[in-house]
Amino acid sequence: MTTETVIDELYNFIYPVAVRAGELLLEGYEKASKNVSIKGAFYDVVTDYDNKIEEHIMGRILSRYPEHKFIGEEDTAKNNNVSKELTDAPTWIIDPIDGTSNFIKQIPHVCVSIGLAINKQIVLGLINNPVQKKMYTAKLNQGAFCNGERIHVSDCKRMNDANVAYEVSLLHVEKVRNKHIKRIYYVGAQARRLLSYSSVVEDLSLVAAGNLDAFYIEDMYPWDCAAGSLLISEAGGVITHPSGEPFDVMKADLICASTENLRKELEDLLRQADLAKAVGGEES
Amino acid sequence: MTTETVIDELYNFIYPVAVRAGELLLEGYEKASKNVSIKGAFYDVVTDYDNKIEEHIMGRILSRYPEHKFIGEEDTAKNNNVSKELTDAPTWIIDPIDGTSNFIKQIPHVCVSIGLAINKQIVLGLINNPVQKKMYTAKLNQGAFCNGERIHVSDCKRMNDANVAYEVSLLHVEKVRNKHIKRIYYVGAQARRLLSYSSVVEDLSLVAAGNLDAFYIEDMYPWDCAAGSLLISEAGGVITHPSGEPFDVMKADLICASTENLRKELEDLLRQADLAKAVGGEES
Repeated sequence: MTTETVIDELYNFIYPVAVRAGELLLEGYEKASKNVSIKGAFYDVVTDYDNKIEEHIMGRILSRYPEHKFIGEEDTAKNNNVSKELTDAPTWIIDPIDGTSNFIKQIPHVCVSIGLAINKQIVLGLINNPVQKKMYTAKLNQGAFCNGERIHVSDCKRMNDANVAYEVSLLHVEKVRNKHIKRIYYVGAQARRLLSYSSVVEDLSLVAAGNLDAFYIEDMYPWDCAAGSLLISEAGGVITHPSGEPFDVMKADLICASTENLRKELEDLLRQADLAKAVGGEES
Repeated sequence: MTTETVIDELYNFIYPVAVRAGELLLEGYEKASKNVSIKGAFYDVVTDYDNKIEEHIMGRILSRYPEHKFIGEEDTAKNNNVSKELTDAPTWIIDPIDGTSNFIKQIPHVCVSIGLAINKQIVLGLINNPVQKKMYTAKLNQGAFCNGERIHVSDCKRMNDANVAYEVSLLHVEKVRNKHIKRIYYVGAQARRLLSYSSVVEDLSLVAAGNLDAFYIEDMYPWDCAAGSLLISEAGGVITHPSGEPFDVMKADLICASTENLRKELEDLLRQADLAKAVGGEES
C-alpha cells in the first residue's frame, strides 16, 4: 500500500512537469495551425512535439527518480527504463499528445496524459488540456479535481438520459467497422445523445467531470487510459472491462459511467450489439 | 444584384452586434458550467440565453433597419417581421446558440450564426465561437475570414484523405437511425476519419477554414446553414443539396467539401448508403 505521503510527494514533483508539458503542447498546436496549408508538415510537427513532450516528461522523471519505469510507445521512447510489462515498480504511463487528429486540425480536444502505477495500482493521474485551460488531477483515495476544484461524475442513471461518448477508428477494416456500426446503432437507439471528439483521454476526463455520462472503448493502449481511469473512480464513477470484469490498464478496454446502473445498461447494449447479425434494415 | 457598398455597410453595422452576441453566449456558457450539478437549471440557462442573444441581435437590427425581415424559430422570436418564407426583402437568418448540447455540457463547440439574404441570395455570414475565440466572416464575392485573416478550404480531393464531419440526432427514431447508420458505415469505410462535434454551424466553419474536408447533413433549419453556406463558397469550397442540385438555404439539406471531386465522392457514397438494405453483417 502506497502511503498518502509518498503519493503527495510524487504529485508535487510531477504537477509542474505536467504544466510545462501542456505549454509545449500548446506551442505545437499553434504551430500546426499556422502550417495548415502545408501538407506533410503536419506530421513533422506532430512527431516533433510528441518527442519533445515525451522527452521533457521522461527526462524530468529520470533525473529525479532514475529507478522509475515507463510504459509508452517504444518507437518514440527509446530508453532502458521503458517496458511492455507492468511490474510492482513505480511505472509512469504517458501519452504526450492524445487527440493527434485534433492537434493537426487545431480542434481543441488535445491532452497530455500522465499516470503513475505503484504495485500495479494507478495512484496518480494528471490530464492537461492546455487549449481548453483544464488541468485534471487525481490522487488515489484523495478525489479528482479540475484546476484545483473538486469534480464529480453526473448522477445519470439511465441510458435515455445519458450523453455517451464513443470513438470510431480504423473503419476501413471491415471487421472493425461492423463492430463499431452495430454498437453505435444499439447505443444510439437508447442514449440521449452520442458524441465523438477523437480523444480518448478527453472523453475520460469529460465523464469524470460530469460533462458526459458514459464512454466505451476497446483496443486502446495503457497510456490512453491510465490517468483517466483513476480520474473516473476518484470522481465517483465506475470503470470496468466491457465484460464487467475489473478494469485492467494493460488491456485498456473499458466501459465507464457515472453510475453502476448506467454502466450495466451500456454493457448489456454492447453485448446485444456484438451479437446482432446486421443493422439498418427496416426490420432490424 | 446587391452592390459591394451596400454589403459593406451592412457588414460594418452587424459586426459589433455579432461580437456582443458572442459575449452574451460566453456569459451563459460559463454560467451553465457553474450550474453543472443542478439538473433542469441547464435548460433555463439555455432558454434564457437563447432569448437574450436573439433579442439583442433582432433589437439592434430593427432599430436600424425596421423594414428588415427575419427567419428564425417562431416560438422564441415573436415579431411581425419574422416569417417562414424567404422573399426578396433583406432577411436575417439567425441562430443565437448552435450546439446547445455542448453549451449545456461546457464543451467548446458553440456558435452564434448570423446570415443575411437579399434577393434570396446570402450576402453576409458571421459565425462567432467566443469560447474558441474565433469570429468567422464572409461577404459575397469578397472572401471568407477568421479573426480578420483570409481562410481557404483544404485541397483534399479524395475521400481516403478526408476528415469528414457528420452529426447524429434523433437516433431513437428507427427510420432516422437506419439512415444515419448506413451513411456512417459507407462514408466511414472510405474516409480517413469521421468526426462528430454536435454543432452544424461549427462543422461548416471548420470545413471553410480547412480544419475539416467535408460535411453532410439533412433535416436542418435555415438558421443552421445560412451563414456557414456563404463561408464555404467564399472560402473556395463547394456546397450542394445531397442530390447534387444547387444548395437551397430554405431546405438546408447539404453536402459540402473542399473540392468538387470530394463532394461528388461523398454524394455517391451517401446514395449507395441510402440504397443499402442493412450493414454490419459479415458479408455487407
